[in-house]
Amino acid sequence: MKVNHFEQVRSEAVQMEGAHGCQVRWLIGQADGAPNFAMRQFEVAAGGYTPRHSHPYEHEVFVLEGQGSVYEGDIEHPLHPGDVVFVKPDEVHQFRNTGLGPFKFLCLIPNSGAVKPAVTPECGEN
Amino acid sequence: MKVNHFEQVRSEAVQMEGAHGCQVRWLIGQADGAPNFAMRQFEVAAGGYTPRHSHPYEHEVFVLEGQGSVYEGDIEHPLHPGDVVFVKPDEVHQFRNTGLGPFKFLCLIPNSGAVKPAVTPECGEN
Repeated sequence: MKVNHFEQVRSEAVQMEGAHGCQVRWLIGQADGAPNFAMRQFEVAAGGYTPRHSHPYEHEVFVLEGQGSVYEGDIEHPLHPGDVVFVKPDEVHQFRNTGLGPFKFLCLIPNSGAVKPAVTPECGEN
Repeated sequence: MKVNHFEQVRSEAVQMEGAHGCQVRWLIGQADGAPNFAMRQFEVAAGGYTPRHSHPYEHEVFVLEGQGSVYEGDIEHPLHPGDVVFVKPDEVHQFRNTGLGPFKFLCLIPNSGAVKPAVTPECGEN
């Protein structure tokens, strides 16, 4: 068993093209022995966004703090704390901070999605 | 894509032996087409607990609200909002509400863990 607070986990800047103002923490992943899927926490700064892209694996998202949106192609869905987003494989999507403070959410992916570069699988260009 | 608030998802009482005061919402699961893992939200009432048990699949947990503990066998780990718990396959574990208000957390499992009865896989006796 592993127990810690998310803020104890190192926060890394998401460097990939198409991302702006994104930090990621890998809370639980293959390095912990997680056999099937990984839990990451994202923090997007005011004005920031993740890349608009798609990939062959899903996202399961839970919004923790702040105000944002998820784009389903060109359709914008506003997001608030407690909102849940299921992004199906191959759907074009993008998360944006639409508020003044940080926009924080959990985003889980299957281990098959944790390709190199391992820290930023959803921030690569599609 | 599916977007909603967790409170829009039906809350069901966890009926299995060994559980007390537990409600579960299946936020994302196989019924939504999730190919690999399921996101559930648990709410444990004051004085409530999940069964003390183990199973051959993991839990990935994020604490949302309230005060509680997770038992790793007989070792108690206090839990607060923002805490992250990785319960490895076959580890004996139990979640308890140690506060006065509801204790809420996300608990994700692989689809292999969503056995019948599908709504309460971690509340069966081991």
